[in-house]
This record gives sequence, C-alpha cells and structure tokens, in this order.
Amino acid sequence: MPLDWSRSRRPGAPLDAGARRAAPMDWIPAQPGDPIREIDTPALVLDLDKFEENLKRMADFATRARVRVRPHAKTHKCAEIARRQVAAFGNGVCCEKLGEAEAMLEGDITDVLITNQVVGERKLRRLARLARAYAPARLGVCVDNVDVARQLATVCEAEEARVEVYVDVDLGQNRTGVESPEEAVDLARILVASPFLSFMGLHAFSSLAQHRRGVPERRQAVDRAAMRASLARDALLSANLPCDVVCGGGTGSFLYEAASGVFNEIHPGSFALMDVNYARNEHDPAGPNFEFAMFVLTCVMSVGEERATLDAGLKAFSTDCGPPRPTFAGWRVRGVSDEHTVMMPAEGSVPVKLGDKALLIPGRCDLTVNLHDWIVANLHDWIVAIRNNVVEAVWPVDARGALY
Amino acid sequence: MPLDWSRSRRPGAPLDAGARRAAPMDWIPAQPGDPIREIDTPALVLDLDKFEENLKRMADFATRARVRVRPHAKTHKCAEIARRQVAAFGNGVCCEKLGEAEAMLEGDITDVLITNQVVGERKLRRLARLARAYAPARLGVCVDNVDVARQLATVCEAEEARVEVYVDVDLGQNRTGVESPEEAVDLARILVASPFLSFMGLHAFSSLAQHRRGVPERRQAVDRAAMRASLARDALLSANLPCDVVCGGGTGSFLYEAASGVFNEIHPGSFALMDVNYARNEHDPAGPNFEFAMFVLTCVMSVGEERATLDAGLKAFSTDCGPPRPTFAGWRVRGVSDEHTVMMPAEGSVPVKLGDKALLIPGRCDLTVNLHDWIVANLHDWIVAIRNNVVEAVWPVDARGALY
Repeated sequence: MPLDWSRSRRPGAPLDAGARRAAPMDWIPAQPGDPIREIDTPALVLDLDKFEENLKRMADFATRARVRVRPHAKTHKCAEIARRQVAAFGNGVCCEKLGEAEAMLEGDITDVLITNQVVGERKLRRLARLARAYAPARLGVCVDNVDVARQLATVCEAEEARVEVYVDVDLGQNRTGVESPEEAVDLARILVASPFLSFMGLHAFSSLAQHRRGVPERRQAVDRAAMRASLARDALLSANLPCDVVCGGGTGSFLYEAASGVFNEIHPGSFALMDVNYARNEHDPAGPNFEFAMFVLTCVMSVGEERATLDAGLKAFSTDCGPPRPTFAGWRVRGVSDEHTVMMPAEGSVPVKLGDKALLIPGRCDLTVNLHDWIVANLHDWIVAIRNNVVEAVWPVDARGALY
Repeated sequence: MPLDWSRSRRPGAPLDAGARRAAPMDWIPAQPGDPIREIDTPALVLDLDKFEENLKRMADFATRARVRVRPHAKTHKCAEIARRQVAAFGNGVCCEKLGEAEAMLEGDITDVLITNQVVGERKLRRLARLARAYAPARLGVCVDNVDVARQLATVCEAEEARVEVYVDVDLGQNRTGVESPEEAVDLARILVASPFLSFMGLHAFSSLAQHRRGVPERRQAVDRAAMRASLARDALLSANLPCDVVCGGGTGSFLYEAASGVFNEIHPGSFALMDVNYARNEHDPAGPNFEFAMFVLTCVMSVGEERATLDAGLKAFSTDCGPPRPTFAGWRVRGVSDEHTVMMPAEGSVPVKLGDKALLIPGRCDLTVNLHDWIVANLHDWIVAIRNNVVEAVWPVDARGALY
C-alpha cells in the first residue's frame, strides 16, 4: 500500500523526545492457543460461532428483502471483523470517523463510506489523500453544507482524488443533515458539477428510532423518517439529478428501512456483537433475531460478606444504558465504579471464589469496544465453555482511539 | 532500563500475522508550535497554568496540614504529569492497575503504589518482575485476602523481588478491603513474616464520601471512615505490628483525612485536572479550591436551525455524571450521542459557524482521559486564548488502555 499520504498528514516539526509512550504497548490479553482460563483480565471477548450466526441471519434477511447491507464498523473498529463482514455481505463497510476509514482501508477493506461530514481544510486534505493513496478502493463521505461541499470539491481537485459523496438528510432529529429537499438539490448540484466527486445519493439515519422498545413505535418512527428521505429523493429526480443510493438504518430499524421502498442499502452495526440495550427492544418476528456475541471477561479480585468484586468497571465497559448483565447464575450487579463492579448473590447463586472469571454482557457494544485494544475470539460458547477451551485468535481493535 | 521481564510476561507462541494494528497509530492531534486553531479535534487539552496552580494549592495545603500527598495517576495516566507531581510533592504516585504502574515506572517515577489488590499467579508474577526490574524504585500493592498475601509472598521470594504491601481496609463501602481489625492483623502477620515483603500499613479509601455535596455530609462520612481505619491501626499496634502509613482519600475528602489524626498520606487525583462533578461539591473554605485545567477541544461539524453539532460525543468524554459544560457563551448541551454533541443557543449566545472550535469541561476527568491517547498542553488560558496561541507540548497518555 502506498504510504506517502501518511507522512504528510502531520505537518510541522517532529515531536520532542518526551512525546513517546512511556510504556511499550505490548500487553496482549492472550495468545492463540492459550487456555481460556489464562486470559488476562479485563478483556473483550468474542464468541465466533454466535458472531458468524449473526452475520448469516442478517445475510439471509438481506437476500429475502433484496437490500444491500453495508455494516457499520464504528461498532467494532476491527479490520478482521470488517473483512468477515465483507465476505458475508459482499459490500464494504461504514465508518463514522476519518481515522476509522484509515484503519479499514489499511486493513484491506476496499469500499468504505464515512457516514458523517468531514469539516476543515486539514481533515478534508487527509480525506482526499487517503482516497488517492488507496485508489481504486472506494471512499465515500457525507455532506450537509454547501461550503463544505465546495471545499471538498476544491481539495479533491487539487489532490486529484476521487471521492464518493452522499447528501446527509435530517430525518427529524436535528443533529446533522439538510433540513429540506431544496437544500438537498442545492448540494447535489455542487457535487455533480465537480469532476472528482461522484454524487451517489442520500444518507439518512434515524438515530432516534433505534431504541424505541415496541415494534409499532419503531416501525412508525421509521415510516415517518422514510417519508422525509423519499421527499428528498423525489426532489433530486425531479431536478434531473441522480440518486442511485438511499442508505441508512441501524440494528433497531433496518427491517423497516428495508421494507420502506425508499432505502436500498442498510447500515446496521450492533447486530454483529449485540448488547443488553438492543436485546431490550421487542423482537419483530418479521426479521432476524441476534445472539449475544461479545462480552467483557473479568476476574473476581476481592470477596466479602455477600459480595464478589470484579476487576473491571466504567473504564472497561459502558453503562450509559444501564449496567452490564453478569452471566454468573444467580448473581446481580450491585454497583459499578471506575475500576470495579460489585456483584451480590441472589437466589440460586453459584459459589464464587477469588480469581474466578466472570463474563459480563455490556449495556452498549459500541461504547465498550471503544475502550479496548484487543478482541479475544473463541470458536465455542463462552458461557458454557469458559474453563475448557483455548483461545482461537486475538484481533487488534485497529481503530481504537480514532475519534478524529 | 532492564527489559527481561517484559518479554517473559507474554508466554506462548507469538501472535499470528493478522494480529497487528491495521492502521499505524501515528495520529497526533498537534505538534508543539502549532497554532491552537490548527489542533485536530476531538483532542484532550490541558491548561498548564491552571494545572500548575492546582498543584501549588495542594502542595501549600499539605505543608500546612503536615500530610504527605501521593497523587493518584489513575486520573491522568500520563508520565509527564506524574513527573510534575513528583516535583511538586516530593513523593511518588498511586496507580490503580498493574499496567499503569508499568507505564509510570518506565516513565521514571521511582515510587509507585498500586491501591488495589492484584490477583492470580500471572499478574502477581508480572508485579514481582516489575519490582525487580526497576529496583531500587519502590513498588507497593494492596491486599485484603490471606491467600493473596501468601501467594504474593511466594512469588516475590521466587522472583527475589521486594514489594511494599498495604492492608486494604473496607471503610463501609463493601467493595474491597478487610472487614474487621482482626482480619487486618491476620494479614499483617503473614506480610511481616515474608523476607521479600515490606509491610507498610493501611490503605483505606472512602469512595462514597467523595461526591457528597455538602461540607458537613462529607466531613461526617470521612470521620466515620477514619474511625474504622483507626481501629485497624490500633489493632496492629496492640499486636506489636508496625503501621507506619495510613493512606487514602480523594479530591472530595482529603481535607478531612488530613485533619483526622489517623491518615498521614492522602491520594487525591482529580484535583489536578478538575471536572464538572467535583466542581458541584460545596467548597470548604478550610481547604484549597481548584480550577478547571482539562477540556475536550471539539469542532462545530454541522449547523442547523437553532443548533450547532460538535464532532465529539460519548466516545470522547464521559457523561456518567451528567453532560459536559460548554464554554461557548450562551450555549447549552441539548444532547450527547456516541459521536456528536448537539448544542442549543440560549440568551446572549455568541454566533457560531461551521469549523469553530468549542471547549467542553468534562463531567468526569478520570473517565474522559481514559478515552484519549494524547494531551495537548498550553501555557495560556484556553478559554480566552483559543485563537491566539500556539501549542506548548503534546504528551502521550502513557497508560491509555492499561485496564489490566
């Protein structure tokens, strides 16, 4: 892979000698072949069978529904997982950040869409150089502002870089996206006029719909959102502008985007790993169900009267949507602090001793992966086989820290 | 520095070729000398003047109160900050995790106390080898269990490693620590009998006291906790066991530990950086006040009707104790999602345009630093000088990801 762009993206003097990491980052929680009981904790672990089953269920659904799946890599930030998703769905992946796109392209993903607007000369130049460096790999990005669209066109022309562009449409959340079909048309006119930009269509993500618990509420939220997307698409077509792709949707909503007649590409992310928060959504029997495939493996580091304290807390998993769910029979989480989780026994609790390993199902998978450097993958059921198996593979979270 | 221990701590076969990071981690948000407006966002930024002022206020207090300050490095995970703290207070630092201790010792800190129990043969061996590799640097650890104490003694003897040990005392939180003075005595007997362990005294941290808002409530909580610590200390002395150190306390409570007559060493962490959560505590005029010194620098990445959307969300700062506080005059946070923060204008709001930089004061500093790889430091007031200054230094968050 060409690397010229990587040197130029950090202009200025080199860092002083103090700006190195003091500790070598050579800690890895396990090696392939290690017994699972030997994994150093806390560690992020993946049940490969469940993960592959989740991919298969989504692929079967997409075939039936005749919709393209471009899974969102913001969930896992891991090139190995992305490569398996490309193999399962035949398309590329989504990213949220430019740094994630760098990691995915470097990880041999040849079709990456950044579902976010990239702002500022410095970032736009990095985007253009990235596209040029990895061509003919496809790199896409979203815009919702005419100044950004013009600047993107200028930078891509200067860098002789081809970038695919989607107009981001606000579906009522008032977070990002154009607010009217007319704005979408204005933006598209700028994009189609640029020789280095390929205008692809509309990106329209309904974040608010994902975690409405009841099936009717989720369906109605997406129906309303799809109506707004269709108005923008119709405005483009009426203005003789192309609109090949209308994309968006997440794990909580993809069923309804796929059925809407408006969307032809969906972007679910969490379905591959799952978490407690998505499991709380009422399951719609018209679509696939997904299994918990990702856990945080922890260790009992202190025991006391009626409690067992684990060696992981808010620095190792997210609790924004509630505490993690322990898989120890009969134990429940009493409290979570920065570095510890305290569990209390309830009826039928199994005996627990110092050093025992405990699996936690995270409340939110995206925010939990964001905290880790490595994913330990195993072919067998973690919950039942935790003591008797060996580590299958250890994958880096390639885009860890790629907030930029 | 000797490195033999670092190779041996990952036994087993080397990782397969797939287990490398796909993207080079060479992204750095800025270089020394860069104009501040050019910093790539989101970035963690430090106001050096305010930070040094916070250290000075704490050092002045400690001199008056005749108490030793060993600041907690779990807050910042940064060897450069730790070195400045050592210069200010004349002691070492605390860590919460073994991996943090590795980073601090490698960063030339010669006195490190892990305020947590380290469990399991693998981790204990790493601890012992770390102590041996960096001797005569001091390395300390806490225990609350006789089996762990015995195993630690065995491993240190086998590795010929000298480790300082503190008995961890539960102050009523029922999270870690021994629950009675008798248990403290039993543990201390095991520790003093080991030729390679130095029994130092008691570690007693009152986590629950830190964020009680009112001064009387905080003082009372610490007074009760100090009583439990004093009972454990008296039991040790009555049994002719040493107890040179009684240590603990945080930013919310150190004033009362210092005044208790029981504690002779305090472990505040957040005071150096500060956050919205600690700023909500009622200030006790008997002790120092601290300034906001750390911020998340973000960029306006989308604007719309009555909103400005920033390029940072839950992956770049913690909201466990509420949303961050924006420093843009007249703007308030409407909502935070994984990758975005939406701000709304209120009375007297300054005009905001795409690409503008915005500073956020995080709700919790420890959990926010945990998400970042770099700290951009500046000598001048970030809030007033954001447009007119240059970056002073860029420091790595050396123990980022050291959850283990």
